[in-house]
Amino acid sequence: MRQESVIRVIGIDPGLRRMGWGVVETLGNSLKFVASGTITSDGEMDLASRLRQLYEGLSEVMHSYKPDEAAVEQTFVNKDATATLKLGQARGIALLVPALAGLPVSEYAPNAVKKAVIGVGHGEKQQIHMMVKVLMPKATFNSSDAADALAIAICHSHHRASAKARAMLAAE
Amino acid sequence: MRQESVIRVIGIDPGLRRMGWGVVETLGNSLKFVASGTITSDGEMDLASRLRQLYEGLSEVMHSYKPDEAAVEQTFVNKDATATLKLGQARGIALLVPALAGLPVSEYAPNAVKKAVIGVGHGEKQQIHMMVKVLMPKATFNSSDAADALAIAICHSHHRASAKARAMLAAE
Repeated sequence: MRQESVIRVIGIDPGLRRMGWGVVETLGNSLKFVASGTITSDGEMDLASRLRQLYEGLSEVMHSYKPDEAAVEQTFVNKDATATLKLGQARGIALLVPALAGLPVSEYAPNAVKKAVIGVGHGEKQQIHMMVKVLMPKATFNSSDAADALAIAICHSHHRASAKARAMLAAE
Repeated sequence: MRQESVIRVIGIDPGLRRMGWGVVETLGNSLKFVASGTITSDGEMDLASRLRQLYEGLSEVMHSYKPDEAAVEQTFVNKDATATLKLGQARGIALLVPALAGLPVSEYAPNAVKKAVIGVGHGEKQQIHMMVKVLMPKATFNSSDAADALAIAICHSHHRASAKARAMLAAE
């Protein structure tokens, strides 16, 4: 049997005004809360400066917590094109920063995140936040976005554990 | 009368597959072509890696040509939300890279660019490319995106020249 090693996962919930992030450690099926937070951009500033704020905030988080893998929520494409474009710009930064650090970056649809955390592909935000606390009792979060980011990190941890189990079965 | 100084402007036409860039020098109303090009991302790679390619390509251009100001085209928000999101992500990089270098970044709507280059707010791509050659006979471009980026740089040069003229009139 091979030695399993602890993997640090950062989950990122992208947004132009508020970008949530959450770091967890995963070893097999166990999960441990490391940290979470919210990076905000100043709505009074021009768009390029706001993207720079998000970039610098997220780079600082990467530097402080040195995750091994990253997961970003796949944006819900809504009917408002202007909002979609704004979100897209922030999402570009959320994907770029871990890629610059050489991390593999996975993307998960919102219903995959819900399924991983609450067991079904639909549900209220409140249910997700409650389940994050159930799965990691020590978890703390200062915003809804930080809680969502932790849910994304949990989703990635589950997916990589089951991918590993499938690979081990196939190798037998 | 104050001494005017040469200003280098980089224009950027954002896109996920191809990002056009064009650098011009402006002194009062005169324009000089410096360089232009196209940064491409590999469609076979994952999104985060492609954004990294655009980031690194554009950072290299900034380093080589050291522009003083940047101008980015305001994205045309179309009906296809998936395309809008993709463009948004690439646009996030186009705005971020000059902001990280400390440059002021201006945004111009497509019809403002057309108006600056061909005199009216509508017209075919071909007309824009032709006018770029008329305004800067030495300009070369290897793609339609590079030509568009030069048009954006020209648009910014005109706007800053007229803003300066207005400021001088107001000061009299």
